[in-house]
Parts: sequence; structure tokens; C-alpha cells
Amino acid sequence: MTDENPLLDDRQVDFLLHDVFDAAALCRLPAFTDHSRDTFDLFMNMARKLARNVLFPSYRLMDAEAAHFDGRGVITHPRMREIYPQLAELGVISATRPLDVDGQQLPMTVSCLAQLYLMAGNLSAYGFAMLTSGAAHLIESFGSTALKRDYMAPMYAGRWTGTMALTEPQAGSSLADVQTKATPTADGHYLISGNKVFISGGDHNFADNIVHLALARIEGAPAGTAGISLFVVPKRRIEDGKLVDNDAACAGAFHKLGWRGIPSIALSFGERGDCHGYLLGEPNRGLSYMFQMMNEARLYIGIHGVATASVAYQEPLSYAKNRPQGRKLGQKQDTPPVMIIEHADVRRMLLRQKAIVEGAMSLVVATARYVDLSEHATDEAERAHARVMLDLLTPIAKTFPAEKGYESNALAVQIHGGYGYTSEYLPEAWLRDQKLNSIHEGTTGIQSADLLGRKLGKLGQASMTALHREVRQTLDAARAHGVDAMLCDGLEQALTRVTAVLIKITAERDPERMLSHSVDVMDMFSTFIIAWQWLVQLTAAQPKLRTAPDDDFLRGKQACAQYWFRTELPRIDQLATLIESLEDSYLSAKPAWF
Amino acid sequence: MTDENPLLDDRQVDFLLHDVFDAAALCRLPAFTDHSRDTFDLFMNMARKLARNVLFPSYRLMDAEAAHFDGRGVITHPRMREIYPQLAELGVISATRPLDVDGQQLPMTVSCLAQLYLMAGNLSAYGFAMLTSGAAHLIESFGSTALKRDYMAPMYAGRWTGTMALTEPQAGSSLADVQTKATPTADGHYLISGNKVFISGGDHNFADNIVHLALARIEGAPAGTAGISLFVVPKRRIEDGKLVDNDAACAGAFHKLGWRGIPSIALSFGERGDCHGYLLGEPNRGLSYMFQMMNEARLYIGIHGVATASVAYQEPLSYAKNRPQGRKLGQKQDTPPVMIIEHADVRRMLLRQKAIVEGAMSLVVATARYVDLSEHATDEAERAHARVMLDLLTPIAKTFPAEKGYESNALAVQIHGGYGYTSEYLPEAWLRDQKLNSIHEGTTGIQSADLLGRKLGKLGQASMTALHREVRQTLDAARAHGVDAMLCDGLEQALTRVTAVLIKITAERDPERMLSHSVDVMDMFSTFIIAWQWLVQLTAAQPKLRTAPDDDFLRGKQACAQYWFRTELPRIDQLATLIESLEDSYLSAKPAWF
Repeated sequence: MTDENPLLDDRQVDFLLHDVFDAAALCRLPAFTDHSRDTFDLFMNMARKLARNVLFPSYRLMDAEAAHFDGRGVITHPRMREIYPQLAELGVISATRPLDVDGQQLPMTVSCLAQLYLMAGNLSAYGFAMLTSGAAHLIESFGSTALKRDYMAPMYAGRWTGTMALTEPQAGSSLADVQTKATPTADGHYLISGNKVFISGGDHNFADNIVHLALARIEGAPAGTAGISLFVVPKRRIEDGKLVDNDAACAGAFHKLGWRGIPSIALSFGERGDCHGYLLGEPNRGLSYMFQMMNEARLYIGIHGVATASVAYQEPLSYAKNRPQGRKLGQKQDTPPVMIIEHADVRRMLLRQKAIVEGAMSLVVATARYVDLSEHATDEAERAHARVMLDLLTPIAKTFPAEKGYESNALAVQIHGGYGYTSEYLPEAWLRDQKLNSIHEGTTGIQSADLLGRKLGKLGQASMTALHREVRQTLDAARAHGVDAMLCDGLEQALTRVTAVLIKITAERDPERMLSHSVDVMDMFSTFIIAWQWLVQLTAAQPKLRTAPDDDFLRGKQACAQYWFRTELPRIDQLATLIESLEDSYLSAKPAWF
Repeated sequence: MTDENPLLDDRQVDFLLHDVFDAAALCRLPAFTDHSRDTFDLFMNMARKLARNVLFPSYRLMDAEAAHFDGRGVITHPRMREIYPQLAELGVISATRPLDVDGQQLPMTVSCLAQLYLMAGNLSAYGFAMLTSGAAHLIESFGSTALKRDYMAPMYAGRWTGTMALTEPQAGSSLADVQTKATPTADGHYLISGNKVFISGGDHNFADNIVHLALARIEGAPAGTAGISLFVVPKRRIEDGKLVDNDAACAGAFHKLGWRGIPSIALSFGERGDCHGYLLGEPNRGLSYMFQMMNEARLYIGIHGVATASVAYQEPLSYAKNRPQGRKLGQKQDTPPVMIIEHADVRRMLLRQKAIVEGAMSLVVATARYVDLSEHATDEAERAHARVMLDLLTPIAKTFPAEKGYESNALAVQIHGGYGYTSEYLPEAWLRDQKLNSIHEGTTGIQSADLLGRKLGKLGQASMTALHREVRQTLDAARAHGVDAMLCDGLEQALTRVTAVLIKITAERDPERMLSHSVDVMDMFSTFIIAWQWLVQLTAAQPKLRTAPDDDFLRGKQACAQYWFRTELPRIDQLATLIESLEDSYLSAKPAWF
């Protein structure tokens, strides 16, 4: 059964790509004139095929025979030697990068849907490509011509891989405490020494080199984040045209709950005093450069979350349609059992999964579209508007799939009953995978503080003005198309409520009190944003429903929208009241009270 | 650090045992006159010690080196050979059973708190004892003198173990479809043939025999649940005073997400046509007998859920007090980092855990007390009242710890950050363990249908009358002691709201519509019940607060109660509105819409 899992619903992907977000319209922008609906579909089909035929069949193997440290380095699953060149061949590593670095110059709108297939098929395998893409992009943005030639090009070409090396044992959420040292030398490079932990993809044995983009502190630099610089620290450096060991060694691998095909390692720079690092850009600006990668990575994690939730929705959907168990209420015990999808509570779980998965999928594609517009729209005002929307939505696009996706993944286990708890079925593996997404690339607490403190607090007026404009556009279109007035009114009222509570809360002078309900604000705000995305989808579905009122796919959209607006959206009121009250139980609690 | 995990907060246990539920008062009942506060405390201390010194140090080992099938039988961890006799020695297998079967005749109120330590220490190891206790109790209740002597006595004595063998590949939630066959013989026994799955503790190599309490269908029995009988089917049967193989063989073990120290196996009865089964009680009444064990098991699963959530609350609590990371808002980056418990969002997660764990702990002890009163109260009316309360609370005591406990377990991982995702720390293991509790012994969907359909529907008036009586008593006591009037009024209003929605919903004539929001009713109702338990605890704390207003433990109680009443209790309104609306998105959705 699992081999037949489609990973994503193709019609949903086409619906988002063409009907909801009109990707072909992007081809009017100068950056994308070489593309068309046909080239988008071609890329999507190749990604689908690779995900289904190559990545997914290796998923369970790579989970069961996890990447591991053998005392010298990390041994990844042998399948990676076949998979990685095929990912490179597809061009995903540089899909959105410009032609002049041998990229495909595809819109992120398109690329992110293709990535969903690849991540849903095998998130660990794709993880290497994702990290490589982010690392290479940093060199592309801030590196010298030599660094681009020597280190970026082989990564985009898929010959080498890359990582982001930020975290240290004492500096996880708090990057101000990075201690890794960089000592300048007369030769232009720096000598790096220090220890990094949780470096995903930090070592492997399927490609020739690994390029770490590492945060370190140049001797004498100021304390805190103002003294952090960004370095290219390869596993093997180039000397006289050859690769030589660069004293950047794997010191061990963590045993993880999930993502078992890609290692998370401890990395030791300069144990022999011979670890060369190449400064990227200017000294002490490392953290601001790294934000480019971190922002990209946040969206990627959101896409990961959606992908993992999607494949884990398709699995119980198929199971529920084929597993006989029990009878409908009132049926006699000597009648044959029905398929479990006939039971209302199983349908409840499936519809909840579907509403989360497809709502979140719409959100990540919407966010990806703002990436495209913020970089490539011809009008400066439109670019600025897209940038504001991107900044606002990024922490939500990262967190909602991680948190609600996890809940959806747990439902996938639940629908499988006792079997779901065993490794004879796949949902338990996806549940383990999903849990990481609320932790890495900024925890849910950090994303929530970013949303409330920065996006809604400091930048609040601009964010809310931009959001109001977008939501009003959706409402106008929805009403013009005749979408259910109850839903339109519901969203409008929710916008008013959310806006009111944000105005009230951001006026609070004590920053600790103001931020004490950040996670509730995230919950409230993302519930609203997903409702908005459901109305966006329904607006695209509405004209089609007129000619095909019994179309199953479109009816499913209506059912999900109804579910979200009547089950989830009303939670906003209760959350708003709680947030406004600044309820202080945990803020006031002393450590000894626990 | 993990070796210092106390598993449970001793003061919380003493508080519940003596201050909240006044266990010593039970000694006035004839069944418990041999006991006293001293014997209760003695038993509790022995259980604590065994849990901390023997069970917990083996937990990670038994998780890492899981019980497994070697082709002939299940190999359990060698530590079980030391642990099981010590559990027997403590007397937990027959702790609540009468003296005449060599039990300790302890109240369940006391036993359940002792079990919490043992389960928190090592749920797999204790699982064997729990299952044995339930199986032996069935023979005690319904078996002949010979069966008691031959099969019950060695189980209570801790020489053998027992299981409940209900599930079959086609009959999990739907026991009506049990197909295992029992053919009568002239010798009085039956020949059993069939296959069972998911039999916890179904095989092992640390004791001489395993006694399965198995559901089977006597040839010619009616279809459905009315034709199911209960049999004693030992792994080895007694012939001429010796144990001989009984053709009840392990056919394989499932690979499970958690509970890895205790196997879940497939069991094959009668492959050689030589599997003897001994009828327990009368033919065709098996399911009604089994309900005794299933009801006990539901409460035990609730206790498991609380235990797993408790040990996984103590771990991040200690971590948060000792892990430096980041600074308070406004502190400069060159000041030393603070312990993470200083961050409001970490305290939010800890207080949420504490409110769930201690609220649920109070609920399972309250439920256990109704077990004692329903069996041993001298007044028939009081026994009947306790029985109604027990029936009402059992599905909630099973489900709330499983569902919210799981959420709490996920927070334990989250507080540990990246480390929480690795097996270097324990929270990931407890997260895996906890997930089973929403599935086995009746899924959350089944418990919710039982709560709404049977306890609040068919038996609704009696249940709600009994509950009103209890809650009013709590409110009177709380007000008399001067507990915050806002909390008292809040609970009273919630009682009114919950009652109103139940009257409305149970009047719905279409049973499928009536039950379509069962899980929401469970959520609403258990949120209310836990609020009630918080008021019960606060009422016990209030007199002490007068003399010790700064006592940390008591202040913690106040903080939790405040949190629950202001964050969770308001959810009732939104849930009630949803339930009353009979929102029909998933009920109406067709399979093809998904």
C-alpha cells in the first residue's frame, strides 16, 4: 500500500499552482520570461517522478539503517550515492538561482511545490540538497569571485554539499554566545578553532567535499551578536588545485528521533591548528548575512512540515478506504464490516488532517510567491509590499506546519490503530520526523517572539496595513465570485478582532509582559492566516463549482473550509480574550513553585 | 541528571493521599480496618524506593535493547529476571486483592499512587505486573476453585504472568468479529484455534508460564458479541502436576514505537490441534466478564499516562533550572546567560505540563477512590453513587492523560531544545511511550463514544445528578475555606454550560449526528473535570496557605489553578457552541471528497 502513496495530491498541486496562485502570470516579470506554464509543469513532473520512483522507495531503508558515525566519519546509506546525483540532475539545488550561476531561474512559487514532492518522498535525502542550496546561496550573495568559483560552483553543480554551522554547545537559541575563534593570518585566510553541534549533513561519504558556512568571532571582536563573522570552512580546502584535509572533523553524531537518513553531528574545527576559514563579506556582519540563510531555511522547514504532514495524510486516507472494521450505528453485528472511512470519527480525523495539510500548503506557496515578488516585481512599491508580507508570514509558515502538522501526523498514527504504533506501517516514522520542525531553525517560542515582537510590534503598522490590503482583496474577490457570505463575514470579523487585540497588546510598555503570550498570538494569528488561505482556495474553486457542482475535489475544498471556519476560527475569540488579559500565571511563577 | 529524576513529586503524592483524598478515612470501612496511615506510607515508601533504585535505572536499557522475537520465542531484557521478583515481593500484583487470595487488601486509592511511581520508573517492566494482575483478577472473579488454585495463585504470587488476548487481525476495536474457535471435548476442556495480535506481554523468558485470558467463540455460538466466551489458555498447561506445552505459540513480535521493554506479539493457538482452553464462567458471557478487566485496564492506562507525563515533567524541570542560555529581555549581551527557567516561555511550557500532570493525577486518584467506595462502602446508596461516578470518570481518566499527557510529553522534548530530539536525553523515549495510550484499551474515539453515548446519553441523568452532587460539595467546601470566588464562580458557570449542552445534544434523535462530536464532548468535559480537580486541590491547600502563605508548593498549586481556569476553562464555551451546532463537515463528507 505504501508504494502507492502519491505523497501529494497532484490535483491539489495543480490547483494551487495554476488556479489559486496563477504561476504563469509570473512569466510576465523579466526574471521569468524564459519560462511558461509548460516549463513549470515539466519541472513539476520530473520532481514528482523522482520523488515517487527514487526517493520514496528509499525512505524506510534510510530510516531503519540510519546515518552513523564509525569513529572516523559518518557513513550515510549507500542509496545516497544514487540519489544525490539525481537530485543534482533535476536541478533542485539551484532551481531558483539565476542562469549566470547555472541555475534554472525558476520562481520559488514553482520550486516550493516541487520541493514538497521531494521532501514528502524522503526528507533526509532532500535535506542534503536543501542545506547545500542555502550554503551556496550565501556565497553567491556575499562571496568573492574566487570563493564563488572554488566553493559555490561545485555545490550548485551537485558535486559537493554544504551546511550551516551556527550552533555551539552553549549557544543554540542564543547566537550571541558563539565562541568559535577566527585568527587572521598573513595569507589572507583565518585559522578557525571551536566546536559546533547539531550540524545537519555535517559529514557523509557520498560526495567529495562539504562546505560549512560557519559563524565565528574574529579575535578582538565586540561581544555579542555585533562581533560575529561568517566564514567558509570547507572539510577539504583547495591547495594547488587539489583537495587537502582542512582539519574540520566530525567528532560524533547525535542519535536522533527522526530524520535518520541525514546525520546531525558535532564538528571540531582546528584540533590540529590547521583549519582554514575564508571570511565571507565584511567582518562582524556575519549574523546579518546569515539571516538570509536562516530566513530561507525557515520557509524550507515550513515546506518540510507540510510535506511530512501531506505524505502522512495520504497514507491513512488509503488505509481508511481499505480497512474493514466495525459497523455503522444501527447495523446488525452479522452484517459485513464497513471500511473505517465510513465511521464519522475517522472522517473527522481525516478532514482535520486535510484542512491542516492543504491550508498549510496554500500558506507556504503564498509565502514563496512573496519571495518571488519581493525580488523580481518590476514595481518598487510592489517589491516592498511583498517583502513586508514575506517577513510577516515567514515565522507562521515555519511554525504552523511544525505544530499543527505534528498534530496531523499523530492523527495518521491514530487512524491506523494498533498498527500505526508499529514500524510495519510508516506513520510512526513521519511522526518522529515531524517533531524536529518545532525545534530547529528557531523554536516555536523564538518564531512567536519574532512574530509578535518584531513583525507585529516594531514593524506592526506596515505589516498590518499590508495584510489588510491582501485580505480585503481576497474578500472582494470571494464576494464577487459568490463565495458563502458566512465565510466572508467570518474572516472579516476575525480580521477586526485580531487587529484589535494586536493594537492593544503592542501598546503594553513592559516588553516581558507584552511578549508573555507570544505563543498564543502565534496560535491566534496562524489560525486566522490559514482561514484566509482557505478563503483564497475557495475563491479559486467557486467559478469551477458553477460548472461542476458535484466535483469531488471541489466539494472537498468546501468541506475543509467549512470545517476550519466553524471549528478553528472561533478559537480566535477565546485566544484574543486570553491574550488581552495578559494572564500572568507563568510570568509570575517563581522557579521554586514548580 | 536523569538519575536524580524523582519520577513524581513526593509532596504532591502525600498531598493527594492525605490532604486531598484523606486515605486514612478509608480505614473506617470494614475492608480496610487492618490498614492505617502508617501502612499506607510504608507501602508508598517501598514502591518509591523500588521505582527509583531498581526500575528507573533499567528503563533506558530496556528501551534500547528491546524485547524481541528470536524465531522461537520472545527474549526480554535480562534485567527482567531481577525486576519481576522484586515487583512480586512488593506485592503490587495483588495489592488491592483480598487477604484470602494472599492479597494486601489495600485501597486502590493508595495502590494507584504507588503504581504511579512504578510506571513512571519503567512502564514496560511494570506492564507485566499490571497485565498479570488483571488476568488473575478475572479468574478470581469468575473461575472455578481448580482454576484459581492452578492458574490464579501462581500469577498473584508473581511466579507466572498473565495477558489479555482479545484482538485479532480483523477484530480490534470491533470485538464482535472475534473468530478464534473453541471446540468442546469430552474431557471438559476446549480445543482452541485461532490467531491473536497485539498481545502485550504475550511471551517472554523470565518466568515459567504465561496465562492468556482469551476471547473465543464456541462452535455454534450466536454471531456478534453475544457469542463470545472467555477462556483460560495457558502457554503451558498442567498435566499430572507438570507443565507441558499447550500449543499456544508466539508467531512474531511487532516493532513498536515505544513500550519497547514489553513485547507485543502475534499469538497462534492450536497450530498442532493441541491447545487446551478452560472456560471461565458461563458460555457466551465472555465479553461481559472481560469488561471487568477492560474497565480496570482503562484506569491503569490513565495511570500510565499520568506516570509517563510526570517523569517527563520532572526531567525538563531539572534541565530548565540548570541549563544556561540567553538573557532576560533588556539584559546586555555581555552579561552572563540566565538559566532557561527564567524565560517566560519556558515557564509557560513547564506550568502547562504541571497543570496537566497534577490535574490528571488528581483525577486518577479520585477515580481510584470511587473504585474503593463502589466496592467497599457500607452504605448501598453510597456504593451505587460511587459506581456511577466511576463509570462516568473512567473514559475520561483513560483519555485525558493519554491526549494531554502526550502534549505535555512533547513539551518536555521542546524544553530540551535540540538535545530533546536525541536519545542522549530521555524525553524522546517517553514521547514514544505515551503515544500508545490513545490507542490501546479502546481508542480516544471509542472512549469518547462511550462517554457521550452511554455515560451521558443512556445513563445521562444518573451521571449528571451524581456529578452535580460532587461538584456542589467541592464548591461549598471551597467557598467555606475562602478559595478565590472567581474560580468558584467559574467552575459553577462551566457546570451550567456543560450541563446545558449535554441536555441539548443527547436530545438529538439521529445517533450518528448525536455522536459525531463525541471527541469534542470528551475535550470539553475533561477540561471541566480537570478544572474541578484543580478546585478540589486548591480547597485542600487553602487552610494551609493561611499559615504558610509563602509555601512554594502551595503557591505552585495556586499558579496552576489560575492557569487552568483562565487558559483552558474558557475553551468550554467555544466547544459547547461547536457541539450544539452539530457542525457537519466530516459527517457529510463523502470518501471521494478526501
